[in-house]
Amino acid sequence: MNIAWIGIGVMGNSMAGHLLAAGHGVTVFTRTKSKAENLLRRGARWACSPREAAIDVETVCTMVGYPADVEAVILGPDGALQSMRRGSLLIDFTTSQPSLAAGIALAAAERGVPALDAPVSGGDIGAREARLSIMVGGDKAAFDHALPLFQCLGKTIVHQGPAGSGQHTKMVNQIMIAANMIGVCEGLLYALKAGLNPDMVLASVGSGAAASWSLANLYPRMLKEDYQPGFYVEHFIKDLQIALEETTRMNLDLPGLKLAHRLYAALKADGGARLGTQALILALERLNRPA
Amino acid sequence: MNIAWIGIGVMGNSMAGHLLAAGHGVTVFTRTKSKAENLLRRGARWACSPREAAIDVETVCTMVGYPADVEAVILGPDGALQSMRRGSLLIDFTTSQPSLAAGIALAAAERGVPALDAPVSGGDIGAREARLSIMVGGDKAAFDHALPLFQCLGKTIVHQGPAGSGQHTKMVNQIMIAANMIGVCEGLLYALKAGLNPDMVLASVGSGAAASWSLANLYPRMLKEDYQPGFYVEHFIKDLQIALEETTRMNLDLPGLKLAHRLYAALKADGGARLGTQALILALERLNRPA
Repeated sequence: MNIAWIGIGVMGNSMAGHLLAAGHGVTVFTRTKSKAENLLRRGARWACSPREAAIDVETVCTMVGYPADVEAVILGPDGALQSMRRGSLLIDFTTSQPSLAAGIALAAAERGVPALDAPVSGGDIGAREARLSIMVGGDKAAFDHALPLFQCLGKTIVHQGPAGSGQHTKMVNQIMIAANMIGVCEGLLYALKAGLNPDMVLASVGSGAAASWSLANLYPRMLKEDYQPGFYVEHFIKDLQIALEETTRMNLDLPGLKLAHRLYAALKADGGARLGTQALILALERLNRPA
Repeated sequence: MNIAWIGIGVMGNSMAGHLLAAGHGVTVFTRTKSKAENLLRRGARWACSPREAAIDVETVCTMVGYPADVEAVILGPDGALQSMRRGSLLIDFTTSQPSLAAGIALAAAERGVPALDAPVSGGDIGAREARLSIMVGGDKAAFDHALPLFQCLGKTIVHQGPAGSGQHTKMVNQIMIAANMIGVCEGLLYALKAGLNPDMVLASVGSGAAASWSLANLYPRMLKEDYQPGFYVEHFIKDLQIALEETTRMNLDLPGLKLAHRLYAALKADGGARLGTQALILALERLNRPA
């Protein structure tokens, strides 16, 4: 299949690489060409815009940063939709607004292009190992058609419903992570303040009712004061902001989400934008530092 | 070994039963004698007070409700410490105040009795299957001495440090659970409001970075509106209150813990004291119901 891939960040690079490895023809575009060099060496073709990349391909995949980027690379004057042919397929893997996903699906349908929103979770490791969870919204027939492609990229692939449902599902994922991160950080702070040995504490609480992915994976990094990004604070804040916008629109008050957003915003204001999400403990520590 | 067991609730009943099964002589006392009948039929002896139960035994175990109960059954005029002989061992399995555990250890030491605080996690199932996590504070030699007894009751048995450290570790466990419960409930509410199928959502988010014990075990019960107690709301509130007292004492501000306590208190005020902790979703639903 001929595929266009727009957006070669850490995630997109691994994902487009899997499609190349599976024998697909891949045309790439990304803002900074150097980031695509490894793919170009492996046979990917370069395009000078999303619009150019989308010419004569069967599927266009996008994996960019913010909703504004999604809008630009798909709906903008140089966007992919300008050149996609009828019957080709559009898949946006970016975590973005459900309402934007619905709008894109409508605009694409007018041109005879089915569109899927397909945000992922699993981070850089999940992308590299093709073990992502892919949460898909949009037309079921288009989902069925795209399934072999999804299977090159992920292990858990679920059609969640109409356009926007993939994004909504990703919001559920982020809302759950957000509050749990607060709990993991607060538990660790309590342990330190109480004079416990935090490694021994993990041995006691790590496999019972307090068990979580974040406890198993991020608490040990917090202990080592390792704030290297698995997932950037600024990207998580983007996701939490989308979730907050959606809850406002749905008239839903989620105090845990609000608290997490406030704490992460404080962390970003303090210079933590490019740290990993486990750096939340720095915001809670600062909250407890004498002024 | 001859053991006294004070407090035959759901947990205590299973735990004392394991000691009987292991061939120990067990003398029991609990407020409501009928709750001990199955144990008495299996050969346990009845005592009319903690003080009477503790006469001539090598180890006294307590597993009661609130810190005030712990104080009464150990330090009170009819308490076990009144009759414990020098060199016997006191183990309190109740989740209670770290400061009370330290006070008990001091009072017991004056009588030549080492004392351990040994709160557990794992719930009624963990107690029944002898798979508890037991978090132990107190003298290390006493811990080593008690280890074979602990091994009749649990799988994860960790000495956390001096008296009170077991209780502190249990607080870490509860603090982590508290915030995560908010996340699981808020994620489910969002999913429902967004019109997603919550079973499909769980398929997407259940094994990635949002994964947790509560998501795997309690989200499905929330979906079925099954609020039967695995762990009672009123007991969880007791634990959160102890944690809040300790954080106040330590001058530690944990906003997630405070939020969870507020939500659980609202649930209790609404008649939810005897529901399971997964009923937190009712408090969040109520928060979102038009007044």
